[in-house]
Amino acid sequence: MSTDRSAVILLSGGLDSATCLAIARNEGFACHCLTIDYNQRHRAELDAARHLAEAMDAASHTVFPLDLRAFGGSALTSDMPVPKDRDEHEMLDEIPSTYVPARNLVFLSIALARAETLAARDIFVGVNAIDYSGYPDCRPEFVRSFEQTANLATRLGVEGATIRIHTPLIDMTKAQIIRTGSDLGVDFAMTLSCYDPDDHGRACARCDACLLRARGFAQAGIADPTRYQHAAPRLA
Amino acid sequence: MSTDRSAVILLSGGLDSATCLAIARNEGFACHCLTIDYNQRHRAELDAARHLAEAMDAASHTVFPLDLRAFGGSALTSDMPVPKDRDEHEMLDEIPSTYVPARNLVFLSIALARAETLAARDIFVGVNAIDYSGYPDCRPEFVRSFEQTANLATRLGVEGATIRIHTPLIDMTKAQIIRTGSDLGVDFAMTLSCYDPDDHGRACARCDACLLRARGFAQAGIADPTRYQHAAPRLA
Repeated sequence: MSTDRSAVILLSGGLDSATCLAIARNEGFACHCLTIDYNQRHRAELDAARHLAEAMDAASHTVFPLDLRAFGGSALTSDMPVPKDRDEHEMLDEIPSTYVPARNLVFLSIALARAETLAARDIFVGVNAIDYSGYPDCRPEFVRSFEQTANLATRLGVEGATIRIHTPLIDMTKAQIIRTGSDLGVDFAMTLSCYDPDDHGRACARCDACLLRARGFAQAGIADPTRYQHAAPRLA
Repeated sequence: MSTDRSAVILLSGGLDSATCLAIARNEGFACHCLTIDYNQRHRAELDAARHLAEAMDAASHTVFPLDLRAFGGSALTSDMPVPKDRDEHEMLDEIPSTYVPARNLVFLSIALARAETLAARDIFVGVNAIDYSGYPDCRPEFVRSFEQTANLATRLGVEGATIRIHTPLIDMTKAQIIRTGSDLGVDFAMTLSCYDPDDHGRACARCDACLLRARGFAQAGIADPTRYQHAAPRLA
């Protein structure tokens, strides 16, 4: 689809951001993908993002280094263990240790800087308030507040443009995200959601992200194409 | 002064942030300084920040790398020329090319991530709405909006703490900042404000920052300790 509207898409390499990219493309945006390399414990996520951007005809793909290890404080950026085998109740009970301090705020701010250099007014982010209600920075009230701040922070906003933060997945269940992505042609075999993959990018089947993802495929009635290190997750 | 209240101080190495650090220290905070290394064209600014943090008894000093050159779009992070010899009217007329896209938003977001790992609720930033009215992200309405977003974005905010963004300089003239810093014992000879210093950290005397700074010392009636490459600025 031809367009002169550019958007910045935060692309992690996971199932959600891949679906978000597909939605933005389907809405006619020229998609400038932005992957934040925050020294995840595994590089497989970055590889997944690169392959997805290429396969989905992104207008550009920038990998932006951001060394959050300097601060510690999260199982995803330090040596704290990734929690495993938790049930849904445990996942929702508290803010998980995989929470990265102020992550979405930092990521959206960098996406906004990227948008300004492109004169783009649209940013897509695959946050989801249902499956991850434990993360404060996935809530709609956070996103709306950030949007207001973004319009006050930037040259674009001052000059009268309206910057919009698109969160098309925010009210979807994992199963709905998977059905939407599937309808839009996302190849989920290219995506990686696991917090603790092996060196070959194969999923652990036991972390929160693996369990939510596997349950989503089951509920969507779509075969799970995930490559696991051993067996697929055992769903309750 | 002994305290158990920690604050994060954004410290650039310039006159404003040095005064901001002095104010936070004077209010009794244990000051954790954060310098964002966004690949400024000159490293002298980072050296100034290091020396200031040490001289002013900071509780810690973190230099956080953030390669904004990946996006371009500013004279401070690309090969665009730094504007020189502009009068006050020209400075205020438009958003200057030294504006870095979404800079204060990105910097404050990273400061908030640092604060969360310290369980600190206070962030000090030396933004100033009077001398730099050309920058959208130095305005009080931006700072208040960011503060709201910060309280929605973080574990601290969700758990009921109130995160506060302190901008003690926001309504001060440059002369007032210099008088305040001077009263609190800031050694301004250690600070560097110039956008285009030489390799020895000596100021150009012609960029907006040099001109505003020199005028500030003149108006404060305090001798300008700045090391210039050639002559001091000629003030109108």
